[in-house]
Amino acid sequence: MNKPDCNILSLSKAARFLRRHDNYIILTHTSPDGDTLGAAYALYYGLNEIGKTAGVICPDEIPAKYSYFAVKTELADLKNATVVAVDVADLKLLGSLADKYAGNIDLCIDHHISNTSYADNLLLDPNAAAACEVVYELLVKLRVNINDITAKALYTGLATDTGCFKYSNVTAKTHIIASELFDYNIDAAEINRLMFDTKSKQLLKLEQMVLSTAEYHFGDKCILLSVTEEMQNETGCSGTELEGIALISRSVEGVLAGITLKQTGNKTFKVSLRTFSPLDAARICGGLGGGGHKGAAGATLEGTLPEVKAKILAAVREEMENTNVWSSSAE
Amino acid sequence: MNKPDCNILSLSKAARFLRRHDNYIILTHTSPDGDTLGAAYALYYGLNEIGKTAGVICPDEIPAKYSYFAVKTELADLKNATVVAVDVADLKLLGSLADKYAGNIDLCIDHHISNTSYADNLLLDPNAAAACEVVYELLVKLRVNINDITAKALYTGLATDTGCFKYSNVTAKTHIIASELFDYNIDAAEINRLMFDTKSKQLLKLEQMVLSTAEYHFGDKCILLSVTEEMQNETGCSGTELEGIALISRSVEGVLAGITLKQTGNKTFKVSLRTFSPLDAARICGGLGGGGHKGAAGATLEGTLPEVKAKILAAVREEMENTNVWSSSAE
Repeated sequence: MNKPDCNILSLSKAARFLRRHDNYIILTHTSPDGDTLGAAYALYYGLNEIGKTAGVICPDEIPAKYSYFAVKTELADLKNATVVAVDVADLKLLGSLADKYAGNIDLCIDHHISNTSYADNLLLDPNAAAACEVVYELLVKLRVNINDITAKALYTGLATDTGCFKYSNVTAKTHIIASELFDYNIDAAEINRLMFDTKSKQLLKLEQMVLSTAEYHFGDKCILLSVTEEMQNETGCSGTELEGIALISRSVEGVLAGITLKQTGNKTFKVSLRTFSPLDAARICGGLGGGGHKGAAGATLEGTLPEVKAKILAAVREEMENTNVWSSSAE
Repeated sequence: MNKPDCNILSLSKAARFLRRHDNYIILTHTSPDGDTLGAAYALYYGLNEIGKTAGVICPDEIPAKYSYFAVKTELADLKNATVVAVDVADLKLLGSLADKYAGNIDLCIDHHISNTSYADNLLLDPNAAAACEVVYELLVKLRVNINDITAKALYTGLATDTGCFKYSNVTAKTHIIASELFDYNIDAAEINRLMFDTKSKQLLKLEQMVLSTAEYHFGDKCILLSVTEEMQNETGCSGTELEGIALISRSVEGVLAGITLKQTGNKTFKVSLRTFSPLDAARICGGLGGGGHKGAAGATLEGTLPEVKAKILAAVREEMENTNVWSSSAE
């Protein structure tokens, strides 16, 4: 769905675009996170400040934890609307809204280098750690009055897309913007507590169950964790709640391959693989019909738990042998 | 050991002090963390840059994970030395070195409001999130060339004392300094991985054991976790390795009082209590012979595990009833 005629906009041109149009529909991606919501709502509040009508549409329900900035908004009529997608790298990330809005997206504001240029106009900064960095700069360029709730939305995106300023996507600019957002009454510590340090009683129970499944392989260079259907049923934890579990597997000292198996059907498991150099998670999962990045990839495997374990462990062992990280003959 | 004649120095005066003296012994506090070490070594490297002789002394062994900046240094002779304590709020935090250096500390650089003014001269910024903020500003004031290893040391202190920019001690200035440190080759993401996302296989096992002890009380407003001697023996985890465990107890949704009991002797337990408003951890622990802050306090209790549980739970219940957070009659 790439548009060969997609206009790449500078910050100034994007600001002029926003001044010139009105009746904005702002779209977020599916399974909304702090960045797509933060960017969408910061843009919404900013457009309100310059007298524009705007509304936010999210393809999925917005999790309650974002309610300190993600309020219900009135929506413009699609006929006269200017549609802006934020933090949406690909049309298909609009989920159920993709069909309705395909070909009707006037502007996309994003930070993913993988953006497929599906919109008529694109403001893209692939060096930005978060879409909220781009929206912040746009609001500054528009000389919009930023108020506390806008600043909270922007800070939320910055913090959540960087693991609270922890990951390699953070730049000097990320910290400068964060410092400028501290001029507002954002209560960053409370936002961070909600985003990073709050889990349900059920998730804590699930974590305990998952940790008790920990297996170490290949001279402790590989850890394997399992999340069975039974555990999910017993605790009621599912979906996005389980996303943090895969992070555990990459936090163990000396481990180069962290495998998390999540049962998604009777004989179906989703593999999440986290690796450190020289292991390549994308290469390992690619060989199993999946894909991803060098440090994080995934695949879906069919079979019983022991069968799936055997498949992924064989693939990891092959990569370890090929990269001379571990050799079965040395055991 | 307060000195009524302690000179409070401005940044400029502290910079002049450092230019005027030489042969520095830089002291850190006991159980060294990223901030005391980062500040001590940044000062060490900075003093080297302006041609001064300096060495760092830590009362305890420096954990290996800080070896990317905390190198072994040559030491000056105490007779001719200028002694500087960094991030040391109280003489007794020098541990085994307190007796030797009491009365001989020429300068203290700190950010704790509770600093007891034990040194001849004091550079104190109680609004700084980390001692490393103060040392950074001092090095800038000295117009010292900051090199990569100095920047790594400073970033480490900033990140570790703020939970990676997560806590309420972070200010706009903290983020501005972080952004300036990104001008150097610090590999912040790797530092953060080492500091925040690396745990031993044994600690992961201990966490699983501790999570399996989770008890909820008072309508799920209180969680109690236990770390027995047996668990510590089985996993070999002890001391500073266990510090993160108490954080678990404050991360559960709806919990206002998180209790962690760590067995330190046959019939001795250290209580770590984390609370949210209106509960006051210091008041609860104060009544048990301990103390601390409103949100985090501790005490040492004697008895068997069931006896100690009963004592701390009774104290928490009383506080909950007094603050109308929970009432036993409502159950």
